Amino acid sequence: MDTQHMQDRPHDALAAHLSDDLTAVNALIRQTMASEHAPRIPEVTAHLIEAGGKRIRPMLVLAAADLCGYDGAHHHHLAATVEFIHTATLLHDDVVDESAQRRGRATANLLWDNKSSVLVGDYLFARAFQLMVACGSLRVLDILSNASATIAEGEVLQLTTAQNLGTTEAQYLRVIRGKTAALFSAATESGAVLAGAPEDKVQALFTYGDALGISFQMVDDFLDFGGAGDDIGKRIGDDFRERKVTLPIIRAFARADVEERAFWQRTIAKGDQQDGDFEQACAIIARHGTLEETRAEALAWSHRAKEALSDLPDTPLRAMLSDLATYVVQRLN
Amino acid sequence: MDTQHMQDRPHDALAAHLSDDLTAVNALIRQTMASEHAPRIPEVTAHLIEAGGKRIRPMLVLAAADLCGYDGAHHHHLAATVEFIHTATLLHDDVVDESAQRRGRATANLLWDNKSSVLVGDYLFARAFQLMVACGSLRVLDILSNASATIAEGEVLQLTTAQNLGTTEAQYLRVIRGKTAALFSAATESGAVLAGAPEDKVQALFTYGDALGISFQMVDDFLDFGGAGDDIGKRIGDDFRERKVTLPIIRAFARADVEERAFWQRTIAKGDQQDGDFEQACAIIARHGTLEETRAEALAWSHRAKEALSDLPDTPLRAMLSDLATYVVQRLN
Repeated sequence: MDTQHMQDRPHDALAAHLSDDLTAVNALIRQTMASEHAPRIPEVTAHLIEAGGKRIRPMLVLAAADLCGYDGAHHHHLAATVEFIHTATLLHDDVVDESAQRRGRATANLLWDNKSSVLVGDYLFARAFQLMVACGSLRVLDILSNASATIAEGEVLQLTTAQNLGTTEAQYLRVIRGKTAALFSAATESGAVLAGAPEDKVQALFTYGDALGISFQMVDDFLDFGGAGDDIGKRIGDDFRERKVTLPIIRAFARADVEERAFWQRTIAKGDQQDGDFEQACAIIARHGTLEETRAEALAWSHRAKEALSDLPDTPLRAMLSDLATYVVQRLN
Repeated sequence: MDTQHMQDRPHDALAAHLSDDLTAVNALIRQTMASEHAPRIPEVTAHLIEAGGKRIRPMLVLAAADLCGYDGAHHHHLAATVEFIHTATLLHDDVVDESAQRRGRATANLLWDNKSSVLVGDYLFARAFQLMVACGSLRVLDILSNASATIAEGEVLQLTTAQNLGTTEAQYLRVIRGKTAALFSAATESGAVLAGAPEDKVQALFTYGDALGISFQMVDDFLDFGGAGDDIGKRIGDDFRERKVTLPIIRAFARADVEERAFWQRTIAKGDQQDGDFEQACAIIARHGTLEETRAEALAWSHRAKEALSDLPDTPLRAMLSDLATYVVQRLN
């Protein structure tokens, strides 16, 4: 695999580098989601787990453990754990968002029902919890229990920040940490802890995962106001139609004149949206430069992620993690 | 409190005996469900947690730890943990069952929305997980992670056994273990483990909780076919209308003649129910004696629960747990 290709698709390079481990993780995932007694469980989870997720979170665990010289046997359990937590949150998100599509396929709540999505999500979370206990590290359990609480709190907070023009930037950060960064940082931090890494490396890998996740989510929020259609099948303007108050809107609202305030109140707070409103929102955001500012913030977080890696050994794996942080913001172009 | 009263309301006797601990547990519950950032969380959980649950599961933890001579400080965390797991499952159950009432009050999914019930349930589960980690015992975590998986698997299994006349007694037991017994037995077993009890006592307390929970759920299933309205506001015939295949139906279907089989196929498998069908179902069940057999099974499980206590020290607390197993089946009369 040449360097140019690695630069373009760093998750493919990571997958190639970690392929033996990933094969073991995939086997563990399939084995764990089998339920002898409730066949509905593997039906629902196979639909989602086999649907071509990039396994980015398990790869973050494996890479962090490897970078810290881990040579034990529990990294596969830990990698499967974070994928299960991720899948459980996807199942519940689809119920909450009343989604019809995920990764280009009909969602489980549409194919089966909301009941199955809620309960199979609970089952996956319980299974994740069992896998974690099998790792035998209370500190790993502490990290993942805290991440789980941050994720759930962020999801609930998002229910109340949507439609709320009083949302602060601090609340926005909390929501996007819950959506993406909390599990990224838990993956890298717990991988380092499992490997018995010294505190400075644990902290460096936490910071990498946190900054990578924040950057990733900010790019998503940027793209909603005019990037090209991205690779997860999201359509431009979805956040606006769902009245989500993301960074470009928070800052544009803070600087709005009387007329603009009335526009945001009508479209976001009251939800009275008409043809042409999304174009109008894009024009207001462009006028105040807040979409460009969101791009700059995403770049800064990506930069922070790469900087955090400087304390780690200079290996091909470290270069791949750095490339991943570059790749995340390439979608901005 | 006189003995007669203790006999009548053993959970009141337990609550009086454990009152200092329960006060501490209630304070910990309130403190843990506070979320600085997402006020929706304490709103939803206060509605449910303050709604007069009997705190039976926390009391089982406290009683088991006490019976095994525990003198540490983590039993309150563990007691709060099981109450949070219980509350999380109630929130998700109400979404799954589309319930409108719980403990005589409107359910959270009706007062807020399904989204809040799903996500706040996830939050409570994550909080439970944090509290468990704080107990610092991998074996306690192992017990509770296994119980969580059993609960979730039982819930999913119930989705597919409802309406399914091919449900076996083994599947029925698995469903009721998931609904009730798994958390009862995890409460008593983990209380004993926390106290560092020898294996025979751990096993005795596991068996007590398991048998108590199975007895409790069988009584519920018995009452649905003709007991007086019970104290959780459930109406007679609810299970039949929801086409749940419980023990009286499983056995009646196994012995049905051609006409009766057609009746069960129409009302349970196809869900085509008319006025008078519930009375007809009761008559068929009475004819085959399967309601009486369910009563006998519930009594046998209650007896097993009391027998399991014989290996434990003969204290007032042990008598209260025995009274509780008696009380559970008094609703049969």
